[in-house]
Amino acid sequence: MEKLNKSFASDNWSGVCPEIMEALQQANVGHVEAYGEANDFYTQKATAKFKIHFGNAVSPFFVYNGTAANVLGISHLLRSYQAIVSAKSAHLNEDECGAPEKFGSSKILEIETEDGKISPGEVEPFLHSIGFQHHVQPRVISISEVTEKGTVYTPEEVKILAGFAHSHNLLLHMDGARISNAAVALNVPFRDFTTDAGVDVLSFGGTKNGLMFGEAVVFFDKNLAGDFEYLRKQGMQLHSKMRFISAQFDRYLTGDLWKKNAETANRMARLLEKSLRPFSQLKITRSVDANGVFVIIPPEIIPKIQGHYFFHVWDENTSEVRLMCSWDTTEEDIDGFTQVLKNVLRD
Amino acid sequence: MEKLNKSFASDNWSGVCPEIMEALQQANVGHVEAYGEANDFYTQKATAKFKIHFGNAVSPFFVYNGTAANVLGISHLLRSYQAIVSAKSAHLNEDECGAPEKFGSSKILEIETEDGKISPGEVEPFLHSIGFQHHVQPRVISISEVTEKGTVYTPEEVKILAGFAHSHNLLLHMDGARISNAAVALNVPFRDFTTDAGVDVLSFGGTKNGLMFGEAVVFFDKNLAGDFEYLRKQGMQLHSKMRFISAQFDRYLTGDLWKKNAETANRMARLLEKSLRPFSQLKITRSVDANGVFVIIPPEIIPKIQGHYFFHVWDENTSEVRLMCSWDTTEEDIDGFTQVLKNVLRD
Amino acid sequence: MEKLNKSFASDNWSGVCPEIMEALQQANVGHVEAYGEANDFYTQKATAKFKIHFGNAVSPFFVYNGTAANVLGISHLLRSYQAIVSAKSAHLNEDECGAPEKFGSSKILEIETEDGKISPGEVEPFLHSIGFQHHVQPRVISISEVTEKGTVYTPEEVKILAGFAHSHNLLLHMDGARISNAAVALNVPFRDFTTDAGVDVLSFGGTKNGLMFGEAVVFFDKNLAGDFEYLRKQGMQLHSKMRFISAQFDRYLTGDLWKKNAETANRMARLLEKSLRPFSQLKITRSVDANGVFVIIPPEIIPKIQGHYFFHVWDENTSEVRLMCSWDTTEEDIDGFTQVLKNVLRD
Amino acid sequence: MEKLNKSFASDNWSGVCPEIMEALQQANVGHVEAYGEANDFYTQKATAKFKIHFGNAVSPFFVYNGTAANVLGISHLLRSYQAIVSAKSAHLNEDECGAPEKFGSSKILEIETEDGKISPGEVEPFLHSIGFQHHVQPRVISISEVTEKGTVYTPEEVKILAGFAHSHNLLLHMDGARISNAAVALNVPFRDFTTDAGVDVLSFGGTKNGLMFGEAVVFFDKNLAGDFEYLRKQGMQLHSKMRFISAQFDRYLTGDLWKKNAETANRMARLLEKSLRPFSQLKITRSVDANGVFVIIPPEIIPKIQGHYFFHVWDENTSEVRLMCSWDTTEEDIDGFTQVLKNVLRD
Repeated sequence: MEKLNKSFASDNWSGVCPEIMEALQQANVGHVEAYGEANDFYTQKATAKFKIHFGNAVSPFFVYNGTAANVLGISHLLRSYQAIVSAKSAHLNEDECGAPEKFGSSKILEIETEDGKISPGEVEPFLHSIGFQHHVQPRVISISEVTEKGTVYTPEEVKILAGFAHSHNLLLHMDGARISNAAVALNVPFRDFTTDAGVDVLSFGGTKNGLMFGEAVVFFDKNLAGDFEYLRKQGMQLHSKMRFISAQFDRYLTGDLWKKNAETANRMARLLEKSLRPFSQLKITRSVDANGVFVIIPPEIIPKIQGHYFFHVWDENTSEVRLMCSWDTTEEDIDGFTQVLKNVLRD
Repeated sequence: MEKLNKSFASDNWSGVCPEIMEALQQANVGHVEAYGEANDFYTQKATAKFKIHFGNAVSPFFVYNGTAANVLGISHLLRSYQAIVSAKSAHLNEDECGAPEKFGSSKILEIETEDGKISPGEVEPFLHSIGFQHHVQPRVISISEVTEKGTVYTPEEVKILAGFAHSHNLLLHMDGARISNAAVALNVPFRDFTTDAGVDVLSFGGTKNGLMFGEAVVFFDKNLAGDFEYLRKQGMQLHSKMRFISAQFDRYLTGDLWKKNAETANRMARLLEKSLRPFSQLKITRSVDANGVFVIIPPEIIPKIQGHYFFHVWDENTSEVRLMCSWDTTEEDIDGFTQVLKNVLRD
Repeated sequence: MEKLNKSFASDNWSGVCPEIMEALQQANVGHVEAYGEANDFYTQKATAKFKIHFGNAVSPFFVYNGTAANVLGISHLLRSYQAIVSAKSAHLNEDECGAPEKFGSSKILEIETEDGKISPGEVEPFLHSIGFQHHVQPRVISISEVTEKGTVYTPEEVKILAGFAHSHNLLLHMDGARISNAAVALNVPFRDFTTDAGVDVLSFGGTKNGLMFGEAVVFFDKNLAGDFEYLRKQGMQLHSKMRFISAQFDRYLTGDLWKKNAETANRMARLLEKSLRPFSQLKITRSVDANGVFVIIPPEIIPKIQGHYFFHVWDENTSEVRLMCSWDTTEEDIDGFTQVLKNVLRD
Repeated sequence: MEKLNKSFASDNWSGVCPEIMEALQQANVGHVEAYGEANDFYTQKATAKFKIHFGNAVSPFFVYNGTAANVLGISHLLRSYQAIVSAKSAHLNEDECGAPEKFGSSKILEIETEDGKISPGEVEPFLHSIGFQHHVQPRVISISEVTEKGTVYTPEEVKILAGFAHSHNLLLHMDGARISNAAVALNVPFRDFTTDAGVDVLSFGGTKNGLMFGEAVVFFDKNLAGDFEYLRKQGMQLHSKMRFISAQFDRYLTGDLWKKNAETANRMARLLEKSLRPFSQLKITRSVDANGVFVIIPPEIIPKIQGHYFFHVWDENTSEVRLMCSWDTTEEDIDGFTQVLKNVLRD
């Protein structure tokens, strides 16, 4: 199979980082109790790692993917007549093919945003429905960290949202599909913008940052976590050979592998941004907080570049594209991309 | 980590067979389009392999696990008021924590069976509900191949059930979590008891026979398969790094790896049965068609054996236990188990 | 329109009793706040009546029909992975076209019964699933009072079931579609076999005993009732012109109208039974506790009788039929039926 | 009970018109087959009336209320991954407490509108999702006739939307909770803006225009209607004593009772508008097409008026209120309201 150029399409076009692949092989010895039950020491170890990073009170549950982490984690907190408030652009709202509505029966109340971030003032109007039997009852605020528009909430911003939520009997969910990129961008430990900021349930992502498969639903309060194992099973997300998810997370959270991978991706994004700045025909549209670069590229040259390095057009109307860097993006890739751009623009 | 004895608890306590592990590593090169889209050649290749085994008309879709393969595959064929008819002992009915009811809103009409197999005559009484608006409407018959009681439907039995189903406007689903063990037991190609027997949708299992994760929903008619990609996504079962499921199935269906693994498991079950026969204190309770041995063991000695080789008690009342062999079970394991048994009985 | 003979098909073939029809007309004056809100004094009055009969702690909610009363009342107590335990013959299980599975996502665990009644010993085996993540978790026991087989639980029997339920962290639901017939059969007030016996939620039926439409979900504990108004609305069961349900229940629970109607129905059933006893070709199959008579009639004469007085065949195999009496059944109807029977048997 | 002033809160604060009440009494004779089955001639007659108004091909199904008519009618046309496109202000979207999401698992794609009406150009952007497996698939466009903002689609507008829908493999649903008011406003028969305009399924409202309870789901194509009886039952909307819904609709569609009632309501709305125009402190905000008048009233006087004639504030921010007229609104009510307004403004 011929070697392809890296793409800038998505961090999930990348493969598995070597350390994780090695951990998978090391876990492939003998028999281990299925379903993450008590005698599966891989799951015990991975759980312990989560407690190191997020505090002793957390309960992590492993699932297969981010869709499930978001949908199951939130659904567990909701009755069917309760609603989720999120940015309109949230992956949960736009890119799960209706999974929250299907599995949780939950309506999502959308907030239009410029930068993917929401604030208490934008949630507030939905609170007027509380107590009115004809309206769904807001119960969970869901935010993405990193957001779908490449921005990152500060710990302070999360804290304010969580405080607002709790003061109105709401809960705060964080979609952390790219949480490691956020932590690196903020240069703080995970717990600063999760445990200590008042998040109630977190989707902790791994796949986009070097894992083969697997995400974690992390509850910060044991009472909220109660019975979640049944919802996970009913939600078709209980892996029989659980050790192969757990072993990945154990390794991921050891020796700052998560950080190393995310630092590479973020650094490459900044490098890419820097490389694109000089092109007067392009326009960087958003702050490059983490590992994504949003840029307007003249529509006529987009297909020519995609032939070499694939990426997704984000907004057909404005010709804004999204360039994602990954744990495996290299300076050579950035140079290659820049060179293609030069060639295409010269033609 | 100390090396544990193999268990006879379940084939999913085993790990990943070496060939699959190698395939995973080989697939871990560069970037590949996510979600199994058109440019993911691993998914293209695996799909082609399914067509070789099951015929050109089939449409395989990869999902994470067997729960999902069963629930999504069947749900796709049903409206909410339509029902599934299955053996009471079916995994679908008893061991999915209500996933069919949750995701498909479907009632399951149960048939009590001795050996886990159902026949047209047992389905027939449910047909009286057809056209009566107060009753759910039977639409899918679901069978397990191998059944939960270790038995195997012959191609002829499947054909008769499918014919019956189709003549009453019903469809036939097969839960093939252990389909390779069934094929080996029957000594026929997959298609003899699926495609050629009239099965409409199949859950094709891999995890129990040497894969790390991943199962396939196989539709035998393109019209039934239509739009399934949306249900898979909404069902939280679309893997982003799809190549890592596809590469496993590609390898699994190449050079009869599936057969080699299943043959080992089935052969070891027969050997185990043979080793147990001489013990007058034990009673083999079921025909050993595939890789499971059901045996009554005196309750007082069960914990003593489990300390060495774990297994599950199948029926607390009768003290019947289930001993599952796996692709990695060895003659040494059987000998070890037999020795433990001798020691325990001698005490 | 020519006057038809009464049927013995079902108590819901009857119309509206005169007192209820009068109450509907009296409520049809001017404007009343919609949806049973605070200024709808009809709903206030009906609610007060429920408190008189069932105690001050109860919270009644009006819905349209018995399907909804059962499904919404139970669903409100359950998470999707929790299960209902009921008699196989329960209306909830067999005659709601899968509504509990659809709306509540709940699996129903069935108990085969001879007489439609279940006991703690029959529920107990299902408790073994508690704590096992692959199985649905039993949470609600549902009984019918009167049962679908015409029998009635004594207050003591209900008390024992409720005690058993509560001691295992389960709740007790009663389907009281014919609760008035049960109260008359038992000759006790409603509360003796509901409030005082430990029932947690009750479907209080009205339609079968003289109402035009409307049933009530009655919670016996305010904590269980919390937020039910949202589930009712989401369950499509909030009537805008609520006063027309409330006014019926207000009248129904005033001056023992419920009792008068049920007494007639029950008395007519006993009279019918007495009239049938002399026929050697017939066989009364069940105790006539309330308003239904189950009797085996030779299959060849069934259609001939149905031409005069319609009724439903209950069991095709045994030729057992169900003859239901209603609030409007008269001695003349019984005589007429007996006469037809004589004529048909003479032919 | 003291006679209250009429309110202008909603047409469902009104009672039952005399002709309907009479029809209910006339239907209350003897026994009638339950559930609208073949021998219920009331249901046969009402069905025939629908065919007279809407054409022979239609299939009407009676349900209890408008929530159910909308949710069940639309859900029957959708798979769970398919979406509804509607105005954000649609009752279906905002005022059903999440019933479409719960029962149909359907996401609603919202269109912000000024006047409650949507056009093909506003639906078009959602079509970009078609074929993209991560997005819900638009399948039904839902419009309200009369809209929630008091406006009415012309037959031509409906025709254009239906044509657009069908040319993109979508279907058109009409929420006709106030369809009679729309027909009167347009001064055309029902079929001009339904059957002949290409509507696929209609929620035909009765309760708001003089019925006690009951709405109809009308399918315009027998193929779309197939099996709907099961969904209705599963949806908890099958009335046992069906004759009491059918008899109302039979009468409603006879001798233009629907028209008489709606004409009164619409005429009163125009009269009310005319009476309010002279008040310089008020501002009529929307075209009075049917029976609702939207008007900005200074916030400080709103409670004073509500004490005499209740109405709902529509928009707290702008102090816009909604005044609904009903089949029973009289000139005396309008005069009374105007007088109160004068008194309050004079204070």
